[in-house]
Amino acid sequence: MAGLSEMPSYQFNSDNGAPVCDEVMQALIACNTGVETAYGADQWTERLNPAFSEFFEREAFVFPVPTGTAGNGLALGAVTPSYGTVFCHRLAHVVTTECGAPEFYSGGGRMTLLDGLHNKITPQALHQAISDHGIGNVHHMQASALCLTQATECGVIYGLEELVELNAIAHGAGMKSHLDGARYSNALVHLGCSPAEMTWKAGVDLLTYGTTKNGTMNAEAVITFDPHIAAVLRFMHKRAGHLSSKMRYMSSQLLAHLEDDLWRSNATRANGNATRILAALHACPGVEVVHPVHINEVFVLLPPALEAALVKVGLSLRPWDCDGQGNGVRMVMSYADEESHLELFEHTCRNFAKDCN
Amino acid sequence: MAGLSEMPSYQFNSDNGAPVCDEVMQALIACNTGVETAYGADQWTERLNPAFSEFFEREAFVFPVPTGTAGNGLALGAVTPSYGTVFCHRLAHVVTTECGAPEFYSGGGRMTLLDGLHNKITPQALHQAISDHGIGNVHHMQASALCLTQATECGVIYGLEELVELNAIAHGAGMKSHLDGARYSNALVHLGCSPAEMTWKAGVDLLTYGTTKNGTMNAEAVITFDPHIAAVLRFMHKRAGHLSSKMRYMSSQLLAHLEDDLWRSNATRANGNATRILAALHACPGVEVVHPVHINEVFVLLPPALEAALVKVGLSLRPWDCDGQGNGVRMVMSYADEESHLELFEHTCRNFAKDCN
Amino acid sequence: MAGLSEMPSYQFNSDNGAPVCDEVMQALIACNTGVETAYGADQWTERLNPAFSEFFEREAFVFPVPTGTAGNGLALGAVTPSYGTVFCHRLAHVVTTECGAPEFYSGGGRMTLLDGLHNKITPQALHQAISDHGIGNVHHMQASALCLTQATECGVIYGLEELVELNAIAHGAGMKSHLDGARYSNALVHLGCSPAEMTWKAGVDLLTYGTTKNGTMNAEAVITFDPHIAAVLRFMHKRAGHLSSKMRYMSSQLLAHLEDDLWRSNATRANGNATRILAALHACPGVEVVHPVHINEVFVLLPPALEAALVKVGLSLRPWDCDGQGNGVRMVMSYADEESHLELFEHTCRNFAKDCN
Amino acid sequence: MAGLSEMPSYQFNSDNGAPVCDEVMQALIACNTGVETAYGADQWTERLNPAFSEFFEREAFVFPVPTGTAGNGLALGAVTPSYGTVFCHRLAHVVTTECGAPEFYSGGGRMTLLDGLHNKITPQALHQAISDHGIGNVHHMQASALCLTQATECGVIYGLEELVELNAIAHGAGMKSHLDGARYSNALVHLGCSPAEMTWKAGVDLLTYGTTKNGTMNAEAVITFDPHIAAVLRFMHKRAGHLSSKMRYMSSQLLAHLEDDLWRSNATRANGNATRILAALHACPGVEVVHPVHINEVFVLLPPALEAALVKVGLSLRPWDCDGQGNGVRMVMSYADEESHLELFEHTCRNFAKDCN
Repeated sequence: MAGLSEMPSYQFNSDNGAPVCDEVMQALIACNTGVETAYGADQWTERLNPAFSEFFEREAFVFPVPTGTAGNGLALGAVTPSYGTVFCHRLAHVVTTECGAPEFYSGGGRMTLLDGLHNKITPQALHQAISDHGIGNVHHMQASALCLTQATECGVIYGLEELVELNAIAHGAGMKSHLDGARYSNALVHLGCSPAEMTWKAGVDLLTYGTTKNGTMNAEAVITFDPHIAAVLRFMHKRAGHLSSKMRYMSSQLLAHLEDDLWRSNATRANGNATRILAALHACPGVEVVHPVHINEVFVLLPPALEAALVKVGLSLRPWDCDGQGNGVRMVMSYADEESHLELFEHTCRNFAKDCN
Repeated sequence: MAGLSEMPSYQFNSDNGAPVCDEVMQALIACNTGVETAYGADQWTERLNPAFSEFFEREAFVFPVPTGTAGNGLALGAVTPSYGTVFCHRLAHVVTTECGAPEFYSGGGRMTLLDGLHNKITPQALHQAISDHGIGNVHHMQASALCLTQATECGVIYGLEELVELNAIAHGAGMKSHLDGARYSNALVHLGCSPAEMTWKAGVDLLTYGTTKNGTMNAEAVITFDPHIAAVLRFMHKRAGHLSSKMRYMSSQLLAHLEDDLWRSNATRANGNATRILAALHACPGVEVVHPVHINEVFVLLPPALEAALVKVGLSLRPWDCDGQGNGVRMVMSYADEESHLELFEHTCRNFAKDCN
Repeated sequence: MAGLSEMPSYQFNSDNGAPVCDEVMQALIACNTGVETAYGADQWTERLNPAFSEFFEREAFVFPVPTGTAGNGLALGAVTPSYGTVFCHRLAHVVTTECGAPEFYSGGGRMTLLDGLHNKITPQALHQAISDHGIGNVHHMQASALCLTQATECGVIYGLEELVELNAIAHGAGMKSHLDGARYSNALVHLGCSPAEMTWKAGVDLLTYGTTKNGTMNAEAVITFDPHIAAVLRFMHKRAGHLSSKMRYMSSQLLAHLEDDLWRSNATRANGNATRILAALHACPGVEVVHPVHINEVFVLLPPALEAALVKVGLSLRPWDCDGQGNGVRMVMSYADEESHLELFEHTCRNFAKDCN
Repeated sequence: MAGLSEMPSYQFNSDNGAPVCDEVMQALIACNTGVETAYGADQWTERLNPAFSEFFEREAFVFPVPTGTAGNGLALGAVTPSYGTVFCHRLAHVVTTECGAPEFYSGGGRMTLLDGLHNKITPQALHQAISDHGIGNVHHMQASALCLTQATECGVIYGLEELVELNAIAHGAGMKSHLDGARYSNALVHLGCSPAEMTWKAGVDLLTYGTTKNGTMNAEAVITFDPHIAAVLRFMHKRAGHLSSKMRYMSSQLLAHLEDDLWRSNATRANGNATRILAALHACPGVEVVHPVHINEVFVLLPPALEAALVKVGLSLRPWDCDGQGNGVRMVMSYADEESHLELFEHTCRNFAKDCN
């Protein structure tokens, strides 16, 4: 974008950089025929709610959006009055890197920031924050929503029991529970549970359902199981300019992502690539893994010699501030990683490890 | 979308219903290769500002958005303080059919509604409205922007002199001038002037540049020639969730739309189809043309017998309220109209005309 | 205020210009003793809800505010989502002269403007406007509230049956009904009904209750009978900075305004003064009364000779645009009008009438 | 207010609980005569800007408001775009106890919270926070304003050099500097400098000027030295409902507060009372002073026996959480403290000290 500072080209930089996968491209081509009614009254969009209701085993209301920022903003805005506050982790993407989308969509709400390891909110921190806010005290912004990122920005997972506990605290305080699922499919693959278990069965009222990082072309969705929230979202979605006239090109992607469990195969590949990378690094003396590797993200502190070796073969990695410790890097794998790059990485690590001995 | 009432399938219903044209689909496929940096730091997006600056013969700042509603909301929001008012036609799409996007993006601004034939604002009406608003009077919302639709929702064009005059009035009152160019290319083809002449040379400060109705896949853009407005738009654009992570798929379409004057050939075909339809109707006794046909839209009152004849051959048309008079229909042509439909329409009209004699 | 253009000094210019009446001043002095708990936990504020609940014969929730603009903004904002629209008369003070307060407090709602004689909305106009808005149509802002001014800015009254009918239409469309009661007491005196009959018994959900024009020192209130609306208002009221720390000085005024029916005696005097002025004018050939005189406002077209005679004795009147006809003036009477001015006015009219014969 | 939980009656609880001082009451009575033009075109309001311009030795633009919450919201909203962020202390009243007023008035801005002893922001913390926000980075909210409370909520003062340094950092990052001066006069008395030195000469662009805690009846003001900010504030002030129709009753108080240095004598008395209380406590073994006592606030940890002795004579004090340590209380003195209470406090302390020896 205009004025955006340039970012050098790293390997394994981000799953946002991957191209659209073949199945999705074919779906776009397949729906590109004939005249359709605009603004969502097309045959693909009409299948959207039923398809996701089946996926989630419960009536679901689906609102396609082009970005996770739009999804998070709309979702939180729909359940946060202008005097409400959302509780999220201090390092959650929704608060650090979305230019205030929740504040915009809620018309002036506030993000209240909690601490916790690996970007995970703890029940203790949530209890404390709620109690600090004086429910009903007219001088305080009122607790409106809990926002959890699953998986977190560190690639770490909330277990089902953790989700259940946190969401129960939220509901007990009269709040709604939102899941930022930018890497929803990767999390689901890791947990091996059903989509229902990771959402409404665990107390999730609405979620940002991400598919862009998992193979589509700017197609995310806000999904809610609550018809009252859906009734508000409809107008906010249109009003913000997210109701596409040629909606079929959004809906057909979301449908393709479900079909034949494409979401699962893409996420499985991405997660698996991270496992390979992690295994290669584990063999290298001096490597320190910063966060548990649950999905397709690897955060490590690298010995300078290993980093030099990787750069030498053309594998420069994106520096990442890991609490100011050492030589941190972030790697994000995707379904589109090239086998040759993975092998080169593994090869370089093996050589490094050999040299160390 | 969820809950949207169903719309029956009409012929020549809307250019929003047409599929994506081949050139654009090829551009999408062509850019779907390899890893790119996200959020607009890709090679296609980097060509966007230069390409449009060349097109407009002046430095242009381009912000891709998925809908005209997003475009209009962002553009007007960027130049309207919360206590500002936008002047637009009472029947402009931006006020009737966008669920309050300008009010949302401006944080509580107001649309002040003006009258005028064929949805065109007159200098007299604009002068009167500005003077009614008491510039500097603390009790009144303050004039901030003029919003003209080119072509209007009736498919009618402001001539260059009209644009110059209206925008000069706006600038004289300290306002910015915005063009809603949902059918920008169709208007440009009709006027036969340069892009510069229909925009900044006529006093336009920023515009919503539409391409979706002219062959792309949900790709519009807010374009401004004013770096100060661009500096505000950048953040609003991100904050509302319109900065796509895989921006290349937006930018490559906008570039393809410029390339080899694709915008011109598509719009020329659409406008030409309207001319054919109009000619066919002109031959039919009892047909009344409601608005001049400048672009790809035809508004007519049909004799019931002609309508019956069209329905009989499978050409049902979308009813349209033309000030409550008679049997109004709206037809919108596109680059994708099928020749067989056009010929069937012409044939049916000829037969009807013959029967009348 | 800074930059406000100066307004010449007219007689009978506005009830906003009158000083605070003695009873209210005494109440302020009486409560100015000793230390009280701040932010409304004082003994006067604690009597507010009970006192107004008795006045209205129903549980009432009272939120003191310094201006009618604050009252209208808060009231409409509390019942209008950001995508909602309020229906009001085109010339209602809330839309012409409050710098967009409802848009501000609703976070981007819209005022939809209706026509009608003497600034009164008709059932026909309201029905039409609601039907134009397509309830549930995602492209349209959604009907949220009806706003009636009682008495209107022309000093004209809605009869109880009219209120009942209009509010029933509003409720039938899922809207809330708000009364802008800047001159509430004057209207109540004119109708001679109970406070309950002019409000909740007629379908009013919330009102701006004005006392400033009737003798207090910048003390209005938003009052609702609906606890759910009250629950929202509490936070909006604080958030906008209308919860005074020394709330006793607001509450004691509102209580004094109720006590011994002060509201009634002040409003009766103001209305009676208007009746006297009107009677004096009726005797003058060539005077045309523009609106029925129901309360303390008189709008007339004056023969130039009469105007000259009034000016000559020091009674210049505020010019007022009465639809562009003739020599319009607005006079607003108050409880504080001086007898000598009233007599001078009557005397001058009598002389003028004599000279005409 | 409705539903506010009751607060027991403490001694030395808050300067917000004091009555209006005689001089201000006399000023209100003095201006309560005759008809004046409404909305600030009265003789008192017209003297407001000149009087404060003289006070500050620079052209000042003054906007009266009823509360500090309104003042802070308007001031920060006027200099913060919807995508902007304000830097303030984590425990500043503006963020903890004003129900999100800045977020409301800025249309969705954000408060970024900094740490520091005694609620004072340090240059290091400010530098770090600014650098964390990536000026120009489209993913980040943009630094817009620094908000300092003078004196802080702990009753502690920023020295002039500290103000100069912090405001220079803010200006260097393109931000505006705002002072929350709820206890402005108390701070000024403590520093003994000129009003100019503590504001614009130290880099303050706009301030909330509090007088309510210092003897007036809900009369604060937003004051700016920047005509461009004033031009925005005018409309925001009206739109939020803070432009009183009977403005003379606000302006006459603010003028009286300046006259004969009433601000100084009231604040001197309040600060002096705190000095007396502190001296009494210093003599008591086991008392720990939590924050330096610069103005009229005293925060101490009390030995339980002393607290019991105070309660016994009728002096119960407001408990206050002092970082969870011991038996904290907050005392706030005012110009209206009764000599008998002060003496009783001193007497009780002396007896306690004697008993300890």
